Amino acid sequence: MADLKFKTEAITSRSEDFAQWYTDVCKKAGLMDYSDVKGFIIYKPYGYAIWEQIQKYLDKEFKETGHQAVYMPLVIPESLFNKEKEHVEGFAPETLIATVGGNKNLDDKLIIRPTSEVLFTSFYSRLVNSYRDLPVLYYQWCNVVRWEKTTRPFLRGSEFLWQEGHTIHASEQEARKEALKMLEVYDNLGRDVLAIPFLKGKKTEKEKFAGAEETYSIEALMHDKKALQSGTTHYFGQGFTKAFNVKYLDSDGQIKNPYQTSWGVSTRLIGSIIMVHGDDNGLVLPPYVAPIQVIIVPIKYQDENVRNACNYLIKELKKFNIRVDIDTSDHTPGWKFNEYEMKGVPLRIEVGPRDLKDGKITFVKRLNNEKNTAELEDFALNVPTLLKEIHQEMYDKAKEFLLNSITEVKTYDELKKVVASEGYAKVCWCGDEKCENKIKLDTNATSRCMPFEQELFSDTCPVCGKKAKYVVYFAKAY
Amino acid sequence: MADLKFKTEAITSRSEDFAQWYTDVCKKAGLMDYSDVKGFIIYKPYGYAIWEQIQKYLDKEFKETGHQAVYMPLVIPESLFNKEKEHVEGFAPETLIATVGGNKNLDDKLIIRPTSEVLFTSFYSRLVNSYRDLPVLYYQWCNVVRWEKTTRPFLRGSEFLWQEGHTIHASEQEARKEALKMLEVYDNLGRDVLAIPFLKGKKTEKEKFAGAEETYSIEALMHDKKALQSGTTHYFGQGFTKAFNVKYLDSDGQIKNPYQTSWGVSTRLIGSIIMVHGDDNGLVLPPYVAPIQVIIVPIKYQDENVRNACNYLIKELKKFNIRVDIDTSDHTPGWKFNEYEMKGVPLRIEVGPRDLKDGKITFVKRLNNEKNTAELEDFALNVPTLLKEIHQEMYDKAKEFLLNSITEVKTYDELKKVVASEGYAKVCWCGDEKCENKIKLDTNATSRCMPFEQELFSDTCPVCGKKAKYVVYFAKAY
Repeated sequence: MADLKFKTEAITSRSEDFAQWYTDVCKKAGLMDYSDVKGFIIYKPYGYAIWEQIQKYLDKEFKETGHQAVYMPLVIPESLFNKEKEHVEGFAPETLIATVGGNKNLDDKLIIRPTSEVLFTSFYSRLVNSYRDLPVLYYQWCNVVRWEKTTRPFLRGSEFLWQEGHTIHASEQEARKEALKMLEVYDNLGRDVLAIPFLKGKKTEKEKFAGAEETYSIEALMHDKKALQSGTTHYFGQGFTKAFNVKYLDSDGQIKNPYQTSWGVSTRLIGSIIMVHGDDNGLVLPPYVAPIQVIIVPIKYQDENVRNACNYLIKELKKFNIRVDIDTSDHTPGWKFNEYEMKGVPLRIEVGPRDLKDGKITFVKRLNNEKNTAELEDFALNVPTLLKEIHQEMYDKAKEFLLNSITEVKTYDELKKVVASEGYAKVCWCGDEKCENKIKLDTNATSRCMPFEQELFSDTCPVCGKKAKYVVYFAKAY
Repeated sequence: MADLKFKTEAITSRSEDFAQWYTDVCKKAGLMDYSDVKGFIIYKPYGYAIWEQIQKYLDKEFKETGHQAVYMPLVIPESLFNKEKEHVEGFAPETLIATVGGNKNLDDKLIIRPTSEVLFTSFYSRLVNSYRDLPVLYYQWCNVVRWEKTTRPFLRGSEFLWQEGHTIHASEQEARKEALKMLEVYDNLGRDVLAIPFLKGKKTEKEKFAGAEETYSIEALMHDKKALQSGTTHYFGQGFTKAFNVKYLDSDGQIKNPYQTSWGVSTRLIGSIIMVHGDDNGLVLPPYVAPIQVIIVPIKYQDENVRNACNYLIKELKKFNIRVDIDTSDHTPGWKFNEYEMKGVPLRIEVGPRDLKDGKITFVKRLNNEKNTAELEDFALNVPTLLKEIHQEMYDKAKEFLLNSITEVKTYDELKKVVASEGYAKVCWCGDEKCENKIKLDTNATSRCMPFEQELFSDTCPVCGKKAKYVVYFAKAY
């Protein structure tokens, strides 16, 4: 009962107030704290460690797909920023601008990068001369700033951390392929690391990135049935390379502009993880992203057998590269159970004198609180498989939730009902932005993406009644 | 002769113009490029990869010494920045200030962090309540901005990349120990990774960090006999924790302010590597920091035996985790030799049909151009040892150069002569800042650090003739 009390004091339930639940988890699991400036958060060790795991996986993937890491400046001269018209219109309203440097007013004001298309393309205009220089496949890990009115930890911040890839190619086909390939890399991150199934597809004209010809996205579905755009890749055509005069001499003797892409995921993914997997006891972390995969809670650490068993377990688990930690503080076991539930540690091992008499330990899966005993001696050997199973169960659970939250709608009433509280409305849409706008106005839902499998299941657009052309997912979104 | 021509065209010699040589190497080895804003450089893949190697080593060391990675905001409200007086005086003149966000003038201007003592200490005031919360051992990898008048790639930039550690402790002794421990971590980085011997010691009052009680530094000696401060650690006492009201309840029931440290190294280390090891053919990279440790240059790649031998070598070298690359472009072997000399790749393997007839390959050490042949079959097995030897030779060479560039001086004339062109003048100094100022004025040399071994070899200060109290190194510095 003491434990229960601790829990109910600690955290709002999801059904009571999902937004408050989210904030509670962010704070109480020790992921972040607020700073002195609105929208600029502090990534605490536990939150940052999740980001480090994501970085480690993606950085390897980027390099293995032939990309190279670089670092571009934090600032963009205003004059340079203004070169690509659509891009400026998209980003100018939310820029942070430096106007004073070394106690002097700057002639050319400096925009703190909201994204770095401008910087990369300007650099490429000096870097590239011949078709032999192509493709250029660069990416960077960095911070970016977008002056947001409404901010929420990880989901929407004035500053966030991300990677941004920027590539240029000799052929349109190759660039288009790159944008789709990187979407696949992000999708694999979801499947293999985050245990999040994404809806993938192309953005509508209205929702695409400022300056892009095409934008693709991965969309995750949160527990409250709202979508969260979790990553995007863009095909730019020659818009930026023409605006910034990136030219090369092709093998046929002609001067040409290359074709361009960019792609990014950010610390927003941490928000996805929280809201896809979390429950009323706090965070539930997928094993491959969890900073601590296994927490050992000793019952009576003063007992020598318990201490020895813990040390043995730690040593054995480390042999399998398991991220294991032990809590030997003087808090009660009950307090510790709650603490590591809150922190979402996938697997808890309880080591106590009673079990040890039979050479056993108890283990508990965070995902479903399933409790089992096992032999101490060879338990470590089974942990990699256990974590893999937990990962798969989490993915399957999220996938089932996603699939149960997609409804094909044929009428506008159905559409309104679905996006109100049931998740995605799969719609056969006429393609007219007016209908998108009307849906937004009436329901606050937006088009999330158009799946690659375009099988029309209805002849007419539910909004205007005209001929349906595209299958689109609509949902309320963060 | 063609090769020789290529070389002399490519790069200024060190003796002719050291500053131009440095810039040539930075650009021609593909380390960096200039951006559209003065002092903000672009880290190209080859330059950034060196930084990645440094990060990898240090991040592991930081974690193994109990530190945790976090991320703090990019911006500091001006009102907060002004809280610690000495710190403000030191940094205010070189800040970049954002005054406009989302098209509106900001009430509290935002300083782009030049360093993050203010942010960490402000955070700690909310984080820490009890002696049980101490120590807090946090660090972050990030970009910082200092609005510099004179900028040079890697050495002094308006933006640079670094890590900054910020710790608070219950006891003065523990904090002092931390500052010295992290200096040791940096010194080990030099010895084990960069092949750079540092002079270590304490800064004088005049040269210490703005707001610190004590500053320690590692100083490297460049080929032109100028010093380069390559990393610092600071002991702050309670200056910041008092100014920012960081308080905790100690076990004795008293409310106390913790003791603080900070420590950092930056991309300036890349400048150190270039100027310590480089020669007239370009960069010379220490093996453990080299993005490419072994470059394979095939002679006649169209020959099937050559291709097979190259593939075999790559496969074998990768077994030993060697970072190996092969250049199969249609440039001549001579061009490739020069190219990878310029890029400072520690070991080159030439694979040609003539050697292969006898089952052999040729290998060349970048450090001294030493050429040898070896059996193809088991060569890979020996490469880890070879790289270790190269590392040691580079370290020993740099150490000899350093030791030969330190002169104990007893008179002011000797001091002036030594700092003019011979490196470090080791001086028995009275401790008066006036003498430091006079030396600076007369010779442009500054005190670099006071070694931990304080053995006075002279009774009087060479500047004022008063009683000598401290052994100090003076040198011109970057």
